[in-house]
Amino acid sequence: MADRLWWEDLWVGRTFDLGEYKVTKDEVIEFATRYDPQPYHTDEEAAASNPIFGRLSASGVHTYAMTSRITFDGFARHGIVPMAGAGSDGLLFEKPVYPGDTLSALIEVVESRPLKSRGDRGLTRMRTVVRNQHGESVLSYTATLFFARREPQT
Amino acid sequence: MADRLWWEDLWVGRTFDLGEYKVTKDEVIEFATRYDPQPYHTDEEAAASNPIFGRLSASGVHTYAMTSRITFDGFARHGIVPMAGAGSDGLLFEKPVYPGDTLSALIEVVESRPLKSRGDRGLTRMRTVVRNQHGESVLSYTATLFFARREPQT
Repeated sequence: MADRLWWEDLWVGRTFDLGEYKVTKDEVIEFATRYDPQPYHTDEEAAASNPIFGRLSASGVHTYAMTSRITFDGFARHGIVPMAGAGSDGLLFEKPVYPGDTLSALIEVVESRPLKSRGDRGLTRMRTVVRNQHGESVLSYTATLFFARREPQT
Repeated sequence: MADRLWWEDLWVGRTFDLGEYKVTKDEVIEFATRYDPQPYHTDEEAAASNPIFGRLSASGVHTYAMTSRITFDGFARHGIVPMAGAGSDGLLFEKPVYPGDTLSALIEVVESRPLKSRGDRGLTRMRTVVRNQHGESVLSYTATLFFARREPQT
């Protein structure tokens, strides 16, 4: 665990390697059965006959959730402690994610500004790129987060 | 189950009521423990002392996942059968979602165009707005989906 980073430490251009997540068939099927039960996410035979995927693949929402977990663990390791998240822009599922894949996530700070209305925090936008073990980008988006300031303004 | 709708049936301005989802404490904690274990999503006491939430709230990723399930069920009821989804723009978590809330989702077709590269399908962008039982918008985004055409072009 690194020292805690404050809003001031998250300058534009700073990058962080957030770590990895192994995608398992059981988890792909379990998640999709609950939240996105398309046959190509829950049934290997149905997936094999799907013209787009060809084999069992993770729901996009599941890939986003796995990325959330990579982010949580990576943030903890780097001492990044958001107060809250406001959302994401340009969420793009670029390639299918398959059981057996290993996902890794990199983030880069792309925008940073103080909040006028609340002197105790700043707004930080972070570009997240998730790749599979072949280096192919499978998911990307830009998240908006709020961080406490080391030196709150009154 | 309604008749199947094709890309041609999803004209700009058409809206669909997708249905509801009841948010439970157990599911909020279970989901967050796995994918977003912030104390304010997994622990009632920790949440009570959080300056932004004040009580246990669902992870944003979880709200997105519950919306995915509302969408799946609502699509099935309306005969909406996407070939695949490409992502979402402007994903915005507008208000916290709490255990006991009932979420409901409405979609509106906001863009529609044929795909030049693939005559068998069209691209459809749908604006999703998720509200709680007080009518407050808690999540909104615009999803990009592909649908089969009733009359494929060669």
